[in-house]
Formats: sequence, C-alpha cells, structure tokens
Amino acid sequence: MALFVQKYGGTSVADIKRINNVAERVLKTYKEGHDVVVVLSAMAGETDRLLSLAKDAATWRSAKRERDVLVSTGEQTTVALLAMVLASMGYKACSLLGFQAGIKTDSSHGNARIVSIETDRIKELLEQRNIVVIAGFQGINPEGDITTLGRGGSDTSAVAIASALKADVCEIYTDVNGIYTADPNICRKARKLDSVSYDEMLNMSSLGARILQIRSVTFAKKYNVPLNVRSSFSEEEGTMVVSEINNPGMERLLVSAITHSKDEVRVTIEGVPDEPGMAGKIFTELSEKSISVDMIIQNTRAGEATDLTFTVDMENFEQAFEIGRKTVKEINAKNIFYDKNIAKVSVIGIGMKENAGVASKVFNALAKENINILMISTSEIRISCVIEEKYVELAVRVLHTTFGLDAE
Amino acid sequence: MALFVQKYGGTSVADIKRINNVAERVLKTYKEGHDVVVVLSAMAGETDRLLSLAKDAATWRSAKRERDVLVSTGEQTTVALLAMVLASMGYKACSLLGFQAGIKTDSSHGNARIVSIETDRIKELLEQRNIVVIAGFQGINPEGDITTLGRGGSDTSAVAIASALKADVCEIYTDVNGIYTADPNICRKARKLDSVSYDEMLNMSSLGARILQIRSVTFAKKYNVPLNVRSSFSEEEGTMVVSEINNPGMERLLVSAITHSKDEVRVTIEGVPDEPGMAGKIFTELSEKSISVDMIIQNTRAGEATDLTFTVDMENFEQAFEIGRKTVKEINAKNIFYDKNIAKVSVIGIGMKENAGVASKVFNALAKENINILMISTSEIRISCVIEEKYVELAVRVLHTTFGLDAE
Repeated sequence: MALFVQKYGGTSVADIKRINNVAERVLKTYKEGHDVVVVLSAMAGETDRLLSLAKDAATWRSAKRERDVLVSTGEQTTVALLAMVLASMGYKACSLLGFQAGIKTDSSHGNARIVSIETDRIKELLEQRNIVVIAGFQGINPEGDITTLGRGGSDTSAVAIASALKADVCEIYTDVNGIYTADPNICRKARKLDSVSYDEMLNMSSLGARILQIRSVTFAKKYNVPLNVRSSFSEEEGTMVVSEINNPGMERLLVSAITHSKDEVRVTIEGVPDEPGMAGKIFTELSEKSISVDMIIQNTRAGEATDLTFTVDMENFEQAFEIGRKTVKEINAKNIFYDKNIAKVSVIGIGMKENAGVASKVFNALAKENINILMISTSEIRISCVIEEKYVELAVRVLHTTFGLDAE
Repeated sequence: MALFVQKYGGTSVADIKRINNVAERVLKTYKEGHDVVVVLSAMAGETDRLLSLAKDAATWRSAKRERDVLVSTGEQTTVALLAMVLASMGYKACSLLGFQAGIKTDSSHGNARIVSIETDRIKELLEQRNIVVIAGFQGINPEGDITTLGRGGSDTSAVAIASALKADVCEIYTDVNGIYTADPNICRKARKLDSVSYDEMLNMSSLGARILQIRSVTFAKKYNVPLNVRSSFSEEEGTMVVSEINNPGMERLLVSAITHSKDEVRVTIEGVPDEPGMAGKIFTELSEKSISVDMIIQNTRAGEATDLTFTVDMENFEQAFEIGRKTVKEINAKNIFYDKNIAKVSVIGIGMKENAGVASKVFNALAKENINILMISTSEIRISCVIEEKYVELAVRVLHTTFGLDAE
C-alpha cells in the first residue's frame, strides 16, 4: 500500500463532467488499496474571472489581503464539488481548505511561501480511509489570514503536501501526456520522455513551465519528491521528474530536449560610457522591480563607450524599456532600441556536464542552415541561443535531429 | 461614538456598482466617528447558482458538509470585494470569514445554530479603526469545519454579532423602506411603521419574513438587540424593531398591521372515527417530518365521526397530503380532500392584549363585505382568518381601514 498525492489542474476540473472523470481516476488508485490525497486547482478560467472582479473593485496594491480571500474561493469550489461527487458515489471523502489542511505560509499575500504543513488532520482522515481533497494554491498566515501562493501555486501545494506526508509519488495531472523532447507542434519527431531530472526540468523554462510551475520543481528537488507528470484525459504513462542521483539507471542521453521561446524581447543600449557601475545601474533597478533579465551581452572596447544588450520576457518588456529609457538619460548613454523578432532555442541535458563538445555541435548545426546566433548563454546543463524569430522552428528540428532525439 | 452593525442583503451587493453604493453607506456612518461592523450576504442569485452546482455534483444527503464548503464561497466573495472597495477609497477595512470572526456553531451542516462568538479579533480590528466586514450565513464547528446557518442566515449572523459586541443598533439593509401596515401592492393606503415590537414582527409571518428572517427576530428578542430595517437604496429612515418593555414611549395602536398570505392549502379529513388518539396520529407524523401545521379545526359531534381541517404551506403541501392519505387508510377515515383557493388574513398588534373587542371588530368588518370566514386562529397579539382567496385584497383593505391604519 502506497500513498499517492494527485494534483489536477484547472482544465481537469473545468466542469462537473470532468470532475466526475477526476473522481474515477482517484477511485482507480484508491480501490487498489492505496491512500490518496488529491490537490485541486480552480476551474479553468475561474481564477481569471475572480481577478477581473477584483480589478473592478480596487487597485492591486490597496487590497492584497482581500484579493487572496476572493481568489481562494476558486479552489474552495472545486474541492467541495469533488468531495461531493465522491461521497455520492458512496466513498468517504473530505475536503480541506488551506487553513484546515494546516498549510502555514508567510504573510506575502498573492505570492506566499509555504513555511510548514501540520499534517495531523490529513493523517487522521487518511487513517479513517478517507480520500482527502485539498484546496491548492492557498494557505494561512500566522495571523490566521488566507494567503495564496501565486500563479500555478497548486503544483507547489501538491509537492509540499507530498513532501510533508512522505508520499511515494506526487502525480501532476494535466492536459498533456508528459514532457516531450521538443514541442510536438513544431517538431513532428518529438518523443515523450520517460524521465527527466529536476535540473533538466528547471532548465526547460518554455517547454516545462506551461506544464509544471518552476517553483514546484525547485521544491520537489530540494525535498526529493518524485513527480509524475501525466494526462488526466488518457491512460498513458507520464514522465517521471526525479533526482538523477537517486536514479542511477536513468537514461543518460547527451541531450534530452530542445526547447524554444518566442516570448522574449531583446533590448540594446548603445554608447554606455565606460565608467564603473554604469551597466550595474539598470540591472539593479530591473531587479528591484522583480523583472528578471535572461541574457546579457556587453561589447567593451577599451576606453570607449560600450553597447549593452539584454533580453526580457514580453510580459515585462514595457516596464523594462521604460526603466532603460530613464537610465539612458541618467548615465548619458547614446541610444536605446529593441527587437521583438527574436526567439530563444535551448539545448538541455544532464549529459552535457561531462561532454564539452555540445556547444560546438550546436553552433555547427545552426551554421549549416545559415542561422545566425545573436546571443548565447550557457549553464552546466543548458545552451541557449537567441536567433531571428523566423528560423525558430527550423532550428528546433535541426537540433532535435543533431542530438539524436528523433522518434523512429 | 456608537457601534453600528450593518447587514446588507443579496440585492444590495448584487454587483460591483451596488457594492460601491454599500461602501458609501458604510462610510457615511464611519465618518461620523462611529465604529462599523458590516455583515454581508452573497450576491443575489449566487447561493442558488452554487446550490444548483451542488445538485449536479451529488445528492443532498451524501455531502452536507461539502455543500457548506461550497455555498460559503458566496459570502466570501462579497466581503472580499467590499473590503477591497473600501481600501481603494483609502479606508482601513478588513474582511473576516466565519472562522476568523470566531462564529462558533454546532455541527448541523446547512442549518447550524450559533453557539458563541469569540469577538477578540473583531474588537482588536475595531480598536485600530478598521471597518470590519464579516461574511454572514457561515460559522465554524468544533471540528474546524465550515457550517452554514440556513436560508436567510445572514440576518441571524448580524443579530448575533450585534448581541456579542453589545452594539447600539443592528441595521438590516434591504430593498424595502421598512415594515408597512400592509402590503403596499394591494393596499394603497399602507403606511410605513416607525417601530414594531419583536412579538409583532414574529407574528407578521408573511409581511415580515420576506424582509427579515424569523429566527433572527427571535434571537434579537432574546438578547434585546434593537433592529432597524431600512433600504440601502434610499435615505429614508426605516422601521425600528424593539422590545415593547424597554420602549414605553412606543406608539400603542390597537392594531399595527394587516398581513396576508396566499401561500397556504387547506386539507380536510372527513369522517375521522371518534376514538382517542386518532387525530393526534396525523399531526405526530407531520411534525416528525418538520411540517408545521398552522391552523386546526375539529368538528366533533358526540359519538359520531368528526371532520378534521388544517392548513399547511404550499411548499409542504404534497408531502403533507401524502401523509394524510396514508393516515386516512390506517385510521379508517372516510375521505381526504384539499383546497388551494384560500388565503389567510391576519390582524396584528400588541394593543390587542388589553382589548377584547378586536375579534368581533374583525368578524363584523368582514361580514359587512359578505366575506365568509372559513377558519380562525388567535394568539395574544394576532387574529388570523382563512377566507376564500378571491376576497383577500378586499379583506386586507377593509381591515386596514377598520383599524384606523390608513394613511391620510
């Protein structure tokens, strides 16, 4: 007998019919004799509806605490409905909201961190053979106020609960079958991966983030919670996200996936005076506004003004450009401009650590197709290239083939 | 400086525009230097929407606990929105859900009773000059589960909170201007009452119940909480509902209101054998099913079979008639039939206690118009007559004039 934590996303609980489908899934595991803790998101679209209500009512800053009271109703609704459906099928089920499940967080409303989980009530319910249905995304702070964990926080809830309960596995049910070697929409030969490491998953920003909140993967890595990403709409086995250390038998391909993102903008500041601290100024301000900069290039010619280029998410672009424009004046730089017609292609794999040849393989493969590399950044297990947007699909397919990922 | 508890019903918080209107009302009192605790219902129609969701998910009996988790989101939404609106206007406001406001109830899900209110947090927030916005209709049981108080329970929440805080007044904001001497829709000369006693209010089942939950009036009477029923859509003063004892100056009309109800059915059982316990049998079973019988008449002719007539609410009629039919067979009575074309007219007033002439005045006034009285019941402060439905408007107007209630 094992303990399963199963997390179902918004599309899986979008209406009563789908909630019935979730109930069937849950019962399949439960009837095999296992303990099941279910963690739910709000119905697809519901959180957005509530946020737009909140927007009509007040400015964001004035009422963060109340915004959490409002949006937490989304998960409250789905957990009650699933527990009802299970009960009407004749099974023992009990919903728990954040405060009832003992999910203690800090007081950072809208983006709270889980501090601890007091599992007494969950364990007691499990001992009585209840299916425990917990509202994701929410917790309670030391003052007894409702907090929420930020976008996609239900994944983090599930992982934290799995960790606290020492669950055998944390299954993340979503609307895709697992993690693929590339986006199947642009690369027909993409394959589903049986497993990836936490680190690879963390580096698959574009492929992964749509499926699994990055923060939950960090959490899973830290507490070594085995994740299984799978679809609630099919019976197919998903992808295991696990520690490479504890899984020596894991397939060790040089490269495990090719990811891409069209969601970035390149910003260039021309003629930054070559004085210490000039470049730091803009990045300090960006980080104060929580705008993360992905890549940075600085072309310094001794004694002369330099050019500074960096990329930011489309979402943060306007704010970042405004900050950039202000800084240009302050530091007496020459000019600032941007380019939205770029894309980022990344090659990801833990095998890279021990193989220096990956970078040159990437450059050669792209060069052969006359794809110009505009920017490069690398980590231990990732090489990312910024290229012209029009080449992105071609680049993904070329690299997918180059690194032997194509399905037969 | 006084402490006001203000309760706003579903139509008063039906959308953001109306919630803004509520905020203005609240602030008017707050800016005068008073403390304000607001108690809210769910948006009009929202509780019904949630109940129908619940109906789709499960049978009523299988998941009462979960039904409360679901429907309590309605008030959670409105309190968050009002607190947001107040905050964005620059005022200190804080929402509290049932569990946060310390509203302890028993475990009777869907129809819970308030056991106690721990007011520490409310008081602390008031001391910091917060406007405290509390979710009506909900509480928490000893296990830490969410409970709801049953239909219209927000009135009861407001009265209980006012009582626990020893508030100076509990204002019930609704979509009418107060309590009238008769339904203005059928009696053009109806006047709004400045005040009524708790007992009169409790007897105004039809006029009153649409405005104020009966249970909340019982509560207010028990703890002597002064109520003020008024409209959230006008500036007009409402009707005070207070104790007659503590308000010796209260206007002591013989009769203060004429109420009516078309919502009843008369059931007659013919030929009940004249043996002890026969009549009791049916009423025992009705009360076991929580069906309340309003009036009962028994025509006994010594040694012969008797006829038994009683009235029940339209809502409970079918179930009551089924029980009646079964009983007819069991006790070997002759026949059972019903009449839906009846109505009840009631004359209400604390002045009646000391004046024996009211009943004859009622009979004479109706007789003069050739309105036949089918059944009669009386209490210390109420005389109710069942008449043919077609005469109901006429009867109300005649009695309204007879007892000097007409506006000039």
